[in-house]
Amino acid sequence: MQLNLENLPKSLELVRADVDIEFRYVDQRLLPGELVIAATSSWRDVVDTVKTLAVRGAPALGIAGAAAMALWARYDGETKLDEVSHIVANARPTAVNLSWGVQRALEVAHGRASDGDDDGLGAAIADDLFTLVQDMQTEDERTNRSIGANGAELLAPGSRILTHCNAGSLATYFYGTALGVVYSAAEQGKVERVYADETRPVGQGARLTAWELSKAGVPVTLICDNMAASLMAQGRVDAVIVGADRIAKNGDAANKIGTYGLAVLAHEHGIPFYVAAPMSTVDASLADGSGIVIEQRAAEEVLAHPIKGVDVYNPAFDVTPARYIAKIVTEKGAFAPKELEARL
Amino acid sequence: MQLNLENLPKSLELVRADVDIEFRYVDQRLLPGELVIAATSSWRDVVDTVKTLAVRGAPALGIAGAAAMALWARYDGETKLDEVSHIVANARPTAVNLSWGVQRALEVAHGRASDGDDDGLGAAIADDLFTLVQDMQTEDERTNRSIGANGAELLAPGSRILTHCNAGSLATYFYGTALGVVYSAAEQGKVERVYADETRPVGQGARLTAWELSKAGVPVTLICDNMAASLMAQGRVDAVIVGADRIAKNGDAANKIGTYGLAVLAHEHGIPFYVAAPMSTVDASLADGSGIVIEQRAAEEVLAHPIKGVDVYNPAFDVTPARYIAKIVTEKGAFAPKELEARL
Repeated sequence: MQLNLENLPKSLELVRADVDIEFRYVDQRLLPGELVIAATSSWRDVVDTVKTLAVRGAPALGIAGAAAMALWARYDGETKLDEVSHIVANARPTAVNLSWGVQRALEVAHGRASDGDDDGLGAAIADDLFTLVQDMQTEDERTNRSIGANGAELLAPGSRILTHCNAGSLATYFYGTALGVVYSAAEQGKVERVYADETRPVGQGARLTAWELSKAGVPVTLICDNMAASLMAQGRVDAVIVGADRIAKNGDAANKIGTYGLAVLAHEHGIPFYVAAPMSTVDASLADGSGIVIEQRAAEEVLAHPIKGVDVYNPAFDVTPARYIAKIVTEKGAFAPKELEARL
Repeated sequence: MQLNLENLPKSLELVRADVDIEFRYVDQRLLPGELVIAATSSWRDVVDTVKTLAVRGAPALGIAGAAAMALWARYDGETKLDEVSHIVANARPTAVNLSWGVQRALEVAHGRASDGDDDGLGAAIADDLFTLVQDMQTEDERTNRSIGANGAELLAPGSRILTHCNAGSLATYFYGTALGVVYSAAEQGKVERVYADETRPVGQGARLTAWELSKAGVPVTLICDNMAASLMAQGRVDAVIVGADRIAKNGDAANKIGTYGLAVLAHEHGIPFYVAAPMSTVDASLADGSGIVIEQRAAEEVLAHPIKGVDVYNPAFDVTPARYIAKIVTEKGAFAPKELEARL
């Protein structure tokens, strides 16, 4: 296998274009049909890209959140800091990284603001916020490469890895978390094949992970979500690796709907189940997963054409209890969930 | 809840139309958008309806197989009995009912044939085969109503039932197996709600079960396959009831892909897992499920537009080991898998 990571775009990036700055992003709604890099200088547009899933993935949302704040500082002389930070942080509820990215921007702002009066604050901190986002981008890729290296140590040569949703380069600035582990292991010649769950209803596995892995040169087989158990029973899965949107202090992890079921199945088949995520995904305010807010999405995602008398339940995430998780793989190392709190 | 079973069509029927006979069937590829009753007098067309899933469901396939033989006998003076029975019985590999239906037709034929010479055999047995299919239809509905009654006894008032794929009236002549249990329990006021798995890739849960239950007046909520575990963890599922395409003597049961994973999840959550099927689904030639042939279907069902470098794995069925099955519900009663062999 020849790994070709240079074929993968940066999924999002705040750049200086001439004298101005703009937010560039892969519009993930159009993949795998078209690779379109879109751009905007409006922080409200960034919020829309997050709500519509044009930009998604917990680590990427952290950067998008800070980038939205940077665009506000540079271009919006009217909206108050409290309002913009509230709107950006709440564009989607489950991933903690979004509010974490906003929080980092607020720390820059609070270093400058006096007495809660933020007239002119944006202009004063615009350059600092641009620099912050650049740093976050660099840091994200470095973090992901560390996660990858730490996770690759857990895998044996010839590994057949099952993943769910997209915790890949497309979910981060670059390189990915769960797929970062795949890339790092692939560089060491340890990956035989990745099985990608389709990940209904929005299909991030079918549209994003399958596309990303094939671009990168990793052998990939797409399955429907309901086929994972059958593969496991046949002995065709050596490890399951997924990302996370929010991790509680005890190691309970929220991730794309379907993750919890996979974890139970892996447990029943004696297959190790790994969660790969940066430490920024840990929400130290939550003792366990019961406090994680689960985003409910529109019925139309599941049932394009409504049927009279048919209800739809469409949670976007579920919570995997820590007892099903073999290791949480972070940039600080891979450790059992019960060791997590000591690393915070 | 007002149960309105009269809103459900017969899913297939061999009828006398004027002086001729024809096979009428709900074209299930068009549901839930349109309810179209199509008709043909060609046994080869019946084979096509089975291959293309216009007609599907293990019990229905038994009747379709015999109906194809009846049409052969009435209209095809050329094709040899061996050839037609082979083609019909092998239109799809996993459901045992298809070859069981053909076998019942062959028993009629063998009662008439002498020395393996079947010239003129078809004409001689055409009326007998028409009668056979009428009997099978009546018998199927009676069997399903018995399965329903036997299964309903297992359910408590207020039951919230999860089902997968469509083992409903549409999968039989009328009334259904797994959904037969739902209808029977609903008549007793025991059903609060049915959760219907979407059942990727062909969507028989989203397209057929959701439609059928809503027509019948049963409260139904559609979920993606990967959401079942989350519902179970929330305590929102009291029982799982599915159909079967082939059951081995030890109780291992083949059913639509995804059934096995559901059974494991139900087991982990302490939720009873029931398989509802007529005794004709039991393949007494198989000691266990390892001998069941799993149909592999086209990649396009999973990935409508191929992605370069992306493989697809698309098995249509999986096998649930008997140890995960609380009861096999048949017309002869509901019993533990290990009691099955004694009932054959």
